[in-house]
Amino acid sequence: MSSHSEVALRLLEDDIEQDSSVGAIDLPAARLAVADLLRALGRDVNDPHLSDTPRRVAGAFEEMLTPRTTSWTTFPNDEGYNDLVLVKNIPFNSLCQHHLLPFRGIAHIGYLPGERLLGLSKLARALEMFSRDLQVQERLTKQVADWLLDLLNPRGVGVVLEAEHLCMSLRGVQSAGTTTRTATFYGDLAVGGPLRDQFPN
Amino acid sequence: MSSHSEVALRLLEDDIEQDSSVGAIDLPAARLAVADLLRALGRDVNDPHLSDTPRRVAGAFEEMLTPRTTSWTTFPNDEGYNDLVLVKNIPFNSLCQHHLLPFRGIAHIGYLPGERLLGLSKLARALEMFSRDLQVQERLTKQVADWLLDLLNPRGVGVVLEAEHLCMSLRGVQSAGTTTRTATFYGDLAVGGPLRDQFPN
Ligand SMILES: Nc1nc2c([nH]c(=O)n2[C@@H]2O[C@H](COP(=O)(O)OP(=O)(O)OP(=O)(O)O)[C@@H](O)[C@H]2O)c(=O)[nH]1
Ligand SMILES: Nc1nc2c([nH]c(=O)n2[C@@H]2O[C@H](COP(=O)(O)OP(=O)(O)OP(=O)(O)O)[C@@H](O)[C@H]2O)c(=O)[nH]1
Repeated sequence: MSSHSEVALRLLEDDIEQDSSVGAIDLPAARLAVADLLRALGRDVNDPHLSDTPRRVAGAFEEMLTPRTTSWTTFPNDEGYNDLVLVKNIPFNSLCQHHLLPFRGIAHIGYLPGERLLGLSKLARALEMFSRDLQVQERLTKQVADWLLDLLNPRGVGVVLEAEHLCMSLRGVQSAGTTTRTATFYGDLAVGGPLRDQFPN
Repeated sequence: MSSHSEVALRLLEDDIEQDSSVGAIDLPAARLAVADLLRALGRDVNDPHLSDTPRRVAGAFEEMLTPRTTSWTTFPNDEGYNDLVLVKNIPFNSLCQHHLLPFRGIAHIGYLPGERLLGLSKLARALEMFSRDLQVQERLTKQVADWLLDLLNPRGVGVVLEAEHLCMSLRGVQSAGTTTRTATFYGDLAVGGPLRDQFPN
């Protein structure tokens, strides 16, 4: 990894630590809380169908809220590739901070390279990293865009998320099939034009 | 409502009461449990983004687990309609009893009428009624089929559910896009043939 991206990674780690007051997960306490929730919902936690549910739910939250570690492989842009690098239709899942219900959809993430290129899979991995949190879609979109800007110092960044919020489909307004689009564009992509038009609508 | 369907409705109510040991929902206790869960997950429940989450999550579970009341309107089959009545592609959502995560998909529900016909929307409403529970897909399928058999005493019943379980997509094996098909067929639909072939594969 180049010293450039090492610096960026340190920045990133700082960002994540500063990000919020997120502490360690206490699995036994999470299991007890889920058992309390089931009882409050009128359920018999000794029922053989439910007795393992507190363990499974706590484990599911732990998994969905723990980012996987990865390395952020960058390459020198030796050929001076100037155009847009755009990874389209990246499926993603996250958890709604308001209802603890999933929201999920597809992302399009692109950048206009400067001196360095990034391993393509890393765009999807960065999205996954920020998705494994209690999120709102706007913040998730901006976090991915800010991360890419910090890491690569590219000439432009674009992040578009199009997601269905199950808190809108399964309950509340119950508007099944509705999707929400959010976008963050930086640098040369901040203004419209043929490059930005390559992002799907 | 005919005396026939009144009897069936009483049967149905008995079934639901006998169904399991489900008690009343205690919303304040559910809120406390969700706050405990958030703390166990390392979150600060005083954070302005999270402070209302216990109320919302408790309310969301209450909504997703409380069947809506409806009447089960039946009509006499005066014309002696003999063929299959099949409502296809009914979207549905339920909650996985193992992980408290949604599972959702489409249902095809049909019957071969005897003396009575049922309001078409009631097939979708019955599915919704049984979906608003902590479920496994096999049980949900069979409950809808048994309900239809009890209510209408038809010559045949078929219920097919095709669903995505978010506990398989978002976590665990993470097999996004996988769907699970379950089916219950009774009476003249219990054996294969041209009527049963009308159910989509
Ligand atoms: N901007 C934005 N809003 C969100 C996200 N997730 C999410 O639940 N919300 C919204 O947060 C709001 C919470 O409102 P509320 O405190 O009245 O909660 P509620 O469950 O009673 O609202 P609801 O029944 O209208 O869904 C809802 O409008 C919900 O749609 C998100 O990612 N971005
Ligand atoms: N037959 C059936 N199985 C289900 C349903 N919902 C549901 O979670 N399951 C399964 O229940 C099992 C629970 O297994 P487990 O006790 O090992 O829980 P886990 O979360 O560690 O399992 P996993 O990580 O394999 O999903 C899983 O295989 C899960 O796929 C359902 O509706 N029908």
